[in-house]
Amino acid sequence: MERIPVLKMGQFLLVTIQVDLYDRLALGLEDDLINMVSRTDARGVLIDISAVNIVDSFMGRILGNIAAMSRVLDAETVVVGMQPAVAITLVELGLTLPGVHTALNVEKGMALLRTKIGSVSTGEETPHDRIVE
Amino acid sequence: MERIPVLKMGQFLLVTIQVDLYDRLALGLEDDLINMVSRTDARGVLIDISAVNIVDSFMGRILGNIAAMSRVLDAETVVVGMQPAVAITLVELGLTLPGVHTALNVEKGMALLRTKIGSVSTGEETPHDRIVE
Repeated sequence: MERIPVLKMGQFLLVTIQVDLYDRLALGLEDDLINMVSRTDARGVLIDISAVNIVDSFMGRILGNIAAMSRVLDAETVVVGMQPAVAITLVELGLTLPGVHTALNVEKGMALLRTKIGSVSTGEETPHDRIVE
Repeated sequence: MERIPVLKMGQFLLVTIQVDLYDRLALGLEDDLINMVSRTDARGVLIDISAVNIVDSFMGRILGNIAAMSRVLDAETVVVGMQPAVAITLVELGLTLPGVHTALNVEKGMALLRTKIGSVSTGEETPHDRIVE
């Protein structure tokens, strides 16, 4: 199992990071995710890092890259589920995750994305609700 | 990272299996998941196995256990994202995943769960729709 699955949920994509990101895996994730954004016309990307105990500058850069690439394709990125210890480490390392929004959990992240894309419509519910934008 | 995160999405829980399940990890997952079902009053459990290349009898048993435990707590279990090769292996091994529903992807799995629990309400949409615990 050497790729991280990207799940489509309505107009959003969800990725759960459970393993340590090494070079090839991270590049594969960037690639898969951006392709999925383009293919599915997704408006938002949710990255759950609740299982991640350590964020280093490499992971920070990957998250930043994903956010930057997604933005070019008109999708916002929200990192959710960060553990308090990880937040502490991030600040101590001086990493600011530029361009990346954060939320406490997936539900709050989805709500944030909905406000970001200016839609109160129901991404998960009706595949037809895109006209509402 | 030695636990698999369980994500709450409205009235459903979502688990993405990305690593090989060994004994302790699988037991931990069962434990976390059932506690979450009980604590969040979830009505459905979605298990995404799109990153899983090999299903053996151990994994089959774990999925069956989770489904059986969830059902006792009034939640249905849907396994989503199974790769065709895995389906072939399952049948060749004679594993039938009793009590486990399957769907092609997360969105279809959610739709299936909604029909199972006889609800057309929007679990994901309104964080207010349960007396928010």
